[in-house]
Amino acid sequence: MQLTPATPAFEATLRATLPAPVFRPLEPRYLEEPRGKFHGADALVLAPGSVEEVSTIIGRAQGERVAVVPYGGGTGLVCGQVAPDLPRPILLTLERMNGIRALHAADNVIEVEAGAVLAHVQDEAEAAGRLFPLSLASEGTAQIGGLLATNAGGVNVLRYGNARDLCLGIEAVLPDGTVLRGLKRLYKDNTGYDLRHLLCGSEGTLGIITAASLKLSPRPRATGAAVLQVESPKAALSLLEITRQVAAEGVSAFELIHRTGQAFLAEVMPQVRLPFGTLPEWVTLIELGVSAGPPPEELLTEIFEKAAEAGLVSDGVVAQSERQRLAFWEMRESIPVANRLIGAICSHDISVPVSIVPEFIDRAFRLVPDVGPFRINCFGHLGDGNLHFNVYPPKGEARSAYMDRAPEVVRRVHDLVHALGGSFSAEHGVGRLKVGDLEHYGDPGRLAAMRAIKAALDPAGIMNPGAVLTR
Amino acid sequence: MQLTPATPAFEATLRATLPAPVFRPLEPRYLEEPRGKFHGADALVLAPGSVEEVSTIIGRAQGERVAVVPYGGGTGLVCGQVAPDLPRPILLTLERMNGIRALHAADNVIEVEAGAVLAHVQDEAEAAGRLFPLSLASEGTAQIGGLLATNAGGVNVLRYGNARDLCLGIEAVLPDGTVLRGLKRLYKDNTGYDLRHLLCGSEGTLGIITAASLKLSPRPRATGAAVLQVESPKAALSLLEITRQVAAEGVSAFELIHRTGQAFLAEVMPQVRLPFGTLPEWVTLIELGVSAGPPPEELLTEIFEKAAEAGLVSDGVVAQSERQRLAFWEMRESIPVANRLIGAICSHDISVPVSIVPEFIDRAFRLVPDVGPFRINCFGHLGDGNLHFNVYPPKGEARSAYMDRAPEVVRRVHDLVHALGGSFSAEHGVGRLKVGDLEHYGDPGRLAAMRAIKAALDPAGIMNPGAVLTR
Repeated sequence: MQLTPATPAFEATLRATLPAPVFRPLEPRYLEEPRGKFHGADALVLAPGSVEEVSTIIGRAQGERVAVVPYGGGTGLVCGQVAPDLPRPILLTLERMNGIRALHAADNVIEVEAGAVLAHVQDEAEAAGRLFPLSLASEGTAQIGGLLATNAGGVNVLRYGNARDLCLGIEAVLPDGTVLRGLKRLYKDNTGYDLRHLLCGSEGTLGIITAASLKLSPRPRATGAAVLQVESPKAALSLLEITRQVAAEGVSAFELIHRTGQAFLAEVMPQVRLPFGTLPEWVTLIELGVSAGPPPEELLTEIFEKAAEAGLVSDGVVAQSERQRLAFWEMRESIPVANRLIGAICSHDISVPVSIVPEFIDRAFRLVPDVGPFRINCFGHLGDGNLHFNVYPPKGEARSAYMDRAPEVVRRVHDLVHALGGSFSAEHGVGRLKVGDLEHYGDPGRLAAMRAIKAALDPAGIMNPGAVLTR
Repeated sequence: MQLTPATPAFEATLRATLPAPVFRPLEPRYLEEPRGKFHGADALVLAPGSVEEVSTIIGRAQGERVAVVPYGGGTGLVCGQVAPDLPRPILLTLERMNGIRALHAADNVIEVEAGAVLAHVQDEAEAAGRLFPLSLASEGTAQIGGLLATNAGGVNVLRYGNARDLCLGIEAVLPDGTVLRGLKRLYKDNTGYDLRHLLCGSEGTLGIITAASLKLSPRPRATGAAVLQVESPKAALSLLEITRQVAAEGVSAFELIHRTGQAFLAEVMPQVRLPFGTLPEWVTLIELGVSAGPPPEELLTEIFEKAAEAGLVSDGVVAQSERQRLAFWEMRESIPVANRLIGAICSHDISVPVSIVPEFIDRAFRLVPDVGPFRINCFGHLGDGNLHFNVYPPKGEARSAYMDRAPEVVRRVHDLVHALGGSFSAEHGVGRLKVGDLEHYGDPGRLAAMRAIKAALDPAGIMNPGAVLTR
C-alpha cells in the first residue's frame, strides 16, 4: 500500500480542525534515538491534547494514507520511534497528554495519560502510600504510553511482572480513528478478546495508547540491598536459589554485573562509586522488599553467610543505609550511560530460561573472540533470564574499525539464543532494528497471524510502518 | 459464511488420515453443561492425540467449512462448549492430550498439554515443591486448555492473577490449521504481538490451545485461614484493608459469603459443616500463605482482634488445623453445588472496582424485589471485586413459575454493573450465554476490532461459531 506524505495541504486541513498547540516545530530531539543507529527525517510534529484530537489526526491520516509514528519519551533502544525512510510522516507525540487522571488508593489503581513520565507516576503512587513497581534506567524520561506499547521490563519484573502485567485497562485510538474505551479498573473482566494485551507490545503498529489504568502494589515496609561477589554465573544462579529460600517472595530484583561493566564505570564515570576496590569478575545486586518478619539487612546477611558457607560468594556488602542502597543502584543504572560513552559495536537484549543463563554466558563469551578481539559487557536481570550482552572494540581502538564485524557477532549471538529456546529481544522490543531478526527467528505461524492482524486493523498500513513487521 | 455439516463422507476422509483412537462415540456428557441452559446436538467427536492431529483436523474443517467446537473439561458456565444449533460440527475434545511434558523446577515452569486436569497440574507442582496457584471449585475436572481459553479466575486471583497471568507460552492451532509454536519458558520476550494473550480468553473462537508453559510459584511455608463474621460488605472491605496491613502480600484469598449461601448448604447439603451455629448475614473467608515472620494463625488472630476493636467483626474462627482450614474451603466450594440443587432463576458473575462492591450489593439487593419475591445468594471474591449474584425462587416454590422474569433481573443487574464501571462477566467468559450482553454493553470500538481480528484469523468462521461474537 502506497503511503503519501503529510503535505502542506494536508497540514492545512488539520489546522482548520485542531487548535494551535497541537502543531509543534520539528525539534532535533524527535529525530534522534539513544544509540544513534537511526536518524529521523522530515516529519509533521503533532502534539494532541486529548484522545479526541488523537482520533481526529489518525482518522485523517488513514483517509489520506499518511504514516503516523508515535513518540513517547524517545528512550526506546530499537528505533521504534525513529523512521528515516517514510514519506513525510506525522510524528505524533503524547507529551501534552501527561496528566494523572485519577488515583484510586482503595482499588490500588492509578489512571494516567500516555505522556506521563514514569518517575512522575512512581511519585504519585508513593504519595498515596502505594508502589508503582515498573522501574528502569530511563524512568526519568520514559513515558507510560511508550512503556506499555513496548511492554517495558526493567529491574522489578522478577517480582511484579512486565509493563503489560501492570496494566488493567487501556484507552487507545485504533488505526481507523476509532477510540477504544477500555479504561476500566477491574481485576477480572472476561468479556472477549484482550485488546489491551494486543496493544501492549505492538510498538505503535496497531494503534496509539492514550491512557491506561495501572495496578499499584502495597509498598514493602522495608527495602534493603546487597552486592555480593560470585565466581561465576552458575554460582549466581545458586545464590538466587538461596535468596529465594531465605526471602521467598520478598525478592524484588536480582541483577548480575560483569567486571567489564564496573571497569567502564571506573574509566568514563569515575564519580560513580563502586562497591569493591578490586573489581570482581561477577557481582550480583540483590534487592529485597519485605513487609513482615526480620528486616531486609538481617535476611541479606543470612543470604550472604549461607552463600559464603556454600562457597558461592567470596565477598559482599549489605547496604547499611538508604544512601548506600541507592549508591548500589546508581552503579547498576549508570552502566548503560557508561556503555554509550565507550561506544558498543553491537548490543543484545536477550533472554533464555533462567536455568540456562550460565550455559548461554559460557558459550557466548567463547564465540565472540572468534569474530574479533572484543570486550564484552554482560549484565542484566538474572532473575528473569534477561541479559544485556554488549560488545566493544579493544581498549584504545576506534569502534569504526570494527563495525563491519557487528552483523557477524549479532548473528552468532542470536543463533545461540535461538538454539537455547531464548528470545532475541527480551525487553526492548523489535522496533526497526530487529525486524530482520523477527523474520528470521520468529515462528512462521505466529508471523502469519501477526500479519493478518496488522492487515485487519490497519489495512492502509499507516501505523508506525516498518516497525515490528516489514512494510 | 455458510457452514457445512460433518458428513459421513467428510468423516471418511478424516478416517483415512487419522488413527482410530481419534474417533469417539458421541457420549451424552459432551452435550451437557453444568447449568443445563443449553443442550448440544449431533456432532462428530474427535479426540486428537497430538498437535499435528489437531492441525490436520482443523485444516480439513477449514477447507470444508465444518464448524469446530473445542471441548475441555466441560465445566464452563456460559455454554461456550455446547453448540445446539450448528450444522453437525466437530466436537474436538483435548482429553487424550493430557500429559505433563516437562517440569523445570529451577525455572519455575511446567509444560502441560491442554487436556491435563487442573488438580493434576497442582499435584505435579506440589511434588516438585512448587505451587500452581490457579484454584477453583471445578479443579478436579476442568482442563488447562479450557481454563486458559476462558481465562479462568478462582480464589487466588487476588495474589497470583488470572489464568492468563500464569501462562508464559502457548502451543496452539490457528483456524487455518497453522501450528503456533510458542511454548517458551521465558519471563521476558518482546518479539511482536502477544498471541498468547489473544488466545487466552478467546474461548476457542480464534484457535485451539494444545499445550502451555505455566508459571509456578514458591509454596508459602505456612497456610492458614479464618472465617470472620462481618455486619456488612462495607465492613468486609475495611477488614480487607486491615488484612492487607497485617499480612501484606501474604493474603492469598478474601471471600465474601452471604447468609443465603450458608442456608442453602444447611438445606440441601447438611453434611457440609458450617462455622457458625446461627447463620450470620455476611461471612468472610480469609486465607494467608506466609513464608517469613509470624505463623498465619498469629496474623489471623491479630487481624481478628484489630477488626473486632474497630467494630467490624462480631465473631470468628481461626483454623487451628489443616483439617479445619480445609473444612472452611469445603464450605466455600460447596456453595455452587448447593446452588444447583436449589436451582437458580438466573445467576451473574460480575465485577466492579473493589471499592464499589458495597454500593453494588446495596443497590442490587434493593432492585431484585422490584422484579419478584426472590432469594438472593451473593458470594464471591471480594478481593477482586468479583461477585456471584444468583437469584432463586421463594422457598418451596417452583423455579419454573418465575423463569419468565429472569431476563428482567439480568438486565437490571447488568445495567447496574455497567453504570458502576464493572463487567457482566468477571471470570466465566462470554460463551453463548452472554453474546447479547457483549453486544449491548461492549465498547463499540472494541467490538469492531474483535470482529476484524476474528475475520482475519478465521475467515471461514469455523472456530466455535456463535461463542463470544454473533455468527
